Amino acid sequence: MHLSAEQITLFLIGISVLLLFARLTGEIFNKFKQASVIGEILAGIILGPTVLGGLFPEIYNSLFMKFPQISIAMDGLTTMAVVMLLLVSGMEVDLSVVFHQSKSAVYTSFLGIIVPFVISFPFAYYIFTGSGMGNENNPLIFAIFVGIALSISALPVIARTLMDLKLLKTPIGQIIITSAIFNDLIGWIGFSVLIGLIGIEENSFSPGMKVLMIFLFTVIMLFVVRKILNSAIPVVQRKFSFPGGILNFIFILGFSAAAFTEWIGIHAIFGAFIMGIIIGDSAHLKEETREMIHQFVTNLFAPLFFVSIGLRVNFIAHFDFLLVVSILIIAFAGKIVGCGFGAKLSGLDKNSSLIIGFGMNSRGAMEIILGLLALQFGLINENFFVALVIMALVTSVLSAPLMSYFLKRRKKETLDDLLSPETIVFSEAENKTELLKELAQIASGKCKLNYAEVLKGITAREKSFSTGIGNFVAIPHARMDIKNPAILIGISKKGIDFEAHDNKKAMLIYFILTPKNQNEVQLKLLAEIARKSRDKNKIQKIAELTSKDQIVKEIKLL
Amino acid sequence: MHLSAEQITLFLIGISVLLLFARLTGEIFNKFKQASVIGEILAGIILGPTVLGGLFPEIYNSLFMKFPQISIAMDGLTTMAVVMLLLVSGMEVDLSVVFHQSKSAVYTSFLGIIVPFVISFPFAYYIFTGSGMGNENNPLIFAIFVGIALSISALPVIARTLMDLKLLKTPIGQIIITSAIFNDLIGWIGFSVLIGLIGIEENSFSPGMKVLMIFLFTVIMLFVVRKILNSAIPVVQRKFSFPGGILNFIFILGFSAAAFTEWIGIHAIFGAFIMGIIIGDSAHLKEETREMIHQFVTNLFAPLFFVSIGLRVNFIAHFDFLLVVSILIIAFAGKIVGCGFGAKLSGLDKNSSLIIGFGMNSRGAMEIILGLLALQFGLINENFFVALVIMALVTSVLSAPLMSYFLKRRKKETLDDLLSPETIVFSEAENKTELLKELAQIASGKCKLNYAEVLKGITAREKSFSTGIGNFVAIPHARMDIKNPAILIGISKKGIDFEAHDNKKAMLIYFILTPKNQNEVQLKLLAEIARKSRDKNKIQKIAELTSKDQIVKEIKLL
Repeated sequence: MHLSAEQITLFLIGISVLLLFARLTGEIFNKFKQASVIGEILAGIILGPTVLGGLFPEIYNSLFMKFPQISIAMDGLTTMAVVMLLLVSGMEVDLSVVFHQSKSAVYTSFLGIIVPFVISFPFAYYIFTGSGMGNENNPLIFAIFVGIALSISALPVIARTLMDLKLLKTPIGQIIITSAIFNDLIGWIGFSVLIGLIGIEENSFSPGMKVLMIFLFTVIMLFVVRKILNSAIPVVQRKFSFPGGILNFIFILGFSAAAFTEWIGIHAIFGAFIMGIIIGDSAHLKEETREMIHQFVTNLFAPLFFVSIGLRVNFIAHFDFLLVVSILIIAFAGKIVGCGFGAKLSGLDKNSSLIIGFGMNSRGAMEIILGLLALQFGLINENFFVALVIMALVTSVLSAPLMSYFLKRRKKETLDDLLSPETIVFSEAENKTELLKELAQIASGKCKLNYAEVLKGITAREKSFSTGIGNFVAIPHARMDIKNPAILIGISKKGIDFEAHDNKKAMLIYFILTPKNQNEVQLKLLAEIARKSRDKNKIQKIAELTSKDQIVKEIKLL
Repeated sequence: MHLSAEQITLFLIGISVLLLFARLTGEIFNKFKQASVIGEILAGIILGPTVLGGLFPEIYNSLFMKFPQISIAMDGLTTMAVVMLLLVSGMEVDLSVVFHQSKSAVYTSFLGIIVPFVISFPFAYYIFTGSGMGNENNPLIFAIFVGIALSISALPVIARTLMDLKLLKTPIGQIIITSAIFNDLIGWIGFSVLIGLIGIEENSFSPGMKVLMIFLFTVIMLFVVRKILNSAIPVVQRKFSFPGGILNFIFILGFSAAAFTEWIGIHAIFGAFIMGIIIGDSAHLKEETREMIHQFVTNLFAPLFFVSIGLRVNFIAHFDFLLVVSILIIAFAGKIVGCGFGAKLSGLDKNSSLIIGFGMNSRGAMEIILGLLALQFGLINENFFVALVIMALVTSVLSAPLMSYFLKRRKKETLDDLLSPETIVFSEAENKTELLKELAQIASGKCKLNYAEVLKGITAREKSFSTGIGNFVAIPHARMDIKNPAILIGISKKGIDFEAHDNKKAMLIYFILTPKNQNEVQLKLLAEIARKSRDKNKIQKIAELTSKDQIVKEIKLL
């Protein structure tokens, strides 16, 4: 069976048109600081039955619907594309982050899964079944699916948004990304177990067997194959031609794992995702290989997949207003309440918790992939699929602006927030007294405080116990009658004796004033500085820099 | 129409197995300094009906033949792959080389097309028709196809072989690569015209119209679209996100051009090839983009295509010994006689001409793509296809060893041949006389000549006309009673006055002794040095180097 010349022509034109529209709309959304995936999905809706099929049915039909062979060829291509996309998404997961979670991340991810599930399950069970359920299952399965669907996040979109907002490497960004990784992992395993359980795919394993196999597959991959691959990758890079050998190796592994999970009866993309995680985890994988795969897949294959989604369903005919609104409300409520409450419980303030909530609320690509599978399996109907896609788009689009809003409202109280080139003071002071006077002078000007009072507060603290903490760092500090914390960083190239235990003179002097009534702000700042003072070589290098911008940048990286 | 879970599983396993075998056999051939494409084709023969299908028909059938849908999906993928491969092959063509051909390249490429065509045409017309012709055409068309098929070369394989033999940047390498580019271009246009003419593809253009359209397409692409693209590429790189925008742009253009030529009624790959040429011609295209596309296509898509060739035909069942041997003889004879004679006519010696002949003899990938199309169009039968593939493999495999053999036999008489770290002499001489004495001393020792005689010959030449040619270069030379030319390169950091027209003191002094009876050897060397002395900044930099190896390398790159 081969494609005819006319079919080849249409197939190639189809790919060109899809890529062109995906790129153009993707770039437009990029310009507005939105993930390009949103534009790509809209491109599909425009080219699909919803718009092009409605306005110019002849063009639409002759482009995409003339031959079943083209649909099959396109289906093969998009299957390959989504497998490659999940492989790359997996490669972006940082397992070490998952293994060493902070308290906030644990609370956020845990409640970020439980709450949406608990909120959406009864809705799905009692209300949506009439308008959303597919043909092939019972209300319970449907409700479990909806619960899972509304509790997952979209790691690639979230990571992209955090990068755009310059939050990725901040503590709050790390909490979000860790929770999202954990969330995705649990969500996908849950979904895989679900479709394994109901045995929709036509193979011979019993539901229990499938669940066991998913469990074994995940454990063996994460704990055994990961170690083997970590040893194998350098060998492949050395013995085979580079980068050809390793590129092939990665795709062969990805496609094989995908084939394996598809064969178990869960979906191909689960295997690709897990394989991506363990390949990406290897420290031996060269950055250029990672970058090459990332660029090629996200720019050629991912758009083809996302744009093909809009081709499948008529978004106007299957638009159910009430359903869309309800799903949107439940989706927002579940994630904001779940993640936000989790973050708050772990000790973060209200604004930070809301930032985390809206950050985790992006459903983007992942929701759509899940929805598409559910549609193909008959778990949900077209109306519900359309509502899920719209919800994924809306949550992703609103994520960045909402986060920005609460970022501005949030009180600046971490060191990284407070740092700016204006806080850096190059001091020529000869001793501690001289230095503290100089810094107190500048600080009192900035905070509109009385100079004598500032100096008194600071020196009182120094008298009771000198604040040199070693590794060339000192932290003179006092609580004053101010609303927001203030900081200065004195840089002394010659060093000032702060009586540190290691006898090292302080070269980096954090001068900190915090509000009188907020004990925890001071404690947090001191803890953060202590954490950033572990590497004396780095501290010394920073103190030797001559550019204020550079110093700020390096302290943030500590 | 969508693929079922079982079909997806088999499709993914199929891709994994094909990629794995292609990589392994490709690497084995790489180790033996052979192009990996040969290994990839053999992998296909092993996995196809020839070996796996013969030995383990059940495995073969369940892997590749169980569902027609998988064949169609695979066909879509390999179509995309071959279009991408030709796009990349086109990008490797250097149009400026074609536009500024040397006399040798003109003779070689011209006779390298004419002679194989003239030799093979009567064979095909009178003898092969019985055993090689397909169903859908007459002996004349068949004979023209065979003529074209035996007169093309395989640019990618040739370029690869030249790189392996470190010949690519040498004069002989440039002749081969230029001829191959020209040869490919003519061959593909010829083939396109042929399939346009016979109107095998089912569309409505008349043969004359098709020929006109191919002609117009080629001319408009090369002279109009090329200029437009050259202006558009920097805009795309600036306005769109990088490298995503330009990657998409290139593939959209490639697929569109492919669809267009497929629509005309010639094959998709012709459009992709021409589009590749004009994209690759743009000086604005960034090297990293080129590299990324090259690596991805040659490592993921090209292997999938080549390995799929072996899946199509049973190479044992369709092996016709006499046919294979005759095609091999005609193929070798045509190219060696044609290209070799062309090179000889243009003034090269016998061994160089034979090196060019064997270099051009590689048929590799191109022959196989052409053969596959001819098979699909019914122009040739399976037996002839098998013979063409075997011929392509044999000519490609033998190319490197045969070239090496004649390379060793060839007299070393180009500058690059003669250069080695031992020829570099760092001189502290204060003036010309002192320097010439020093070099004559060393040269007479190396060539077992009388010192006084060497010095006499050299100084006699200098007296009649000083050999400082400007740009910090001088070429003292003499003809002596020796069998092979000898060279020394004096490096003078302080510079020696050789009375050059630009008053620059010579820092690079080529000291050349050539055989008395071979006038042309001296002329060639002098011309080569003059050509390598155009950039005075580079010369100065070379003279300032302190490593002999480095100097040799840099002079070779001039």
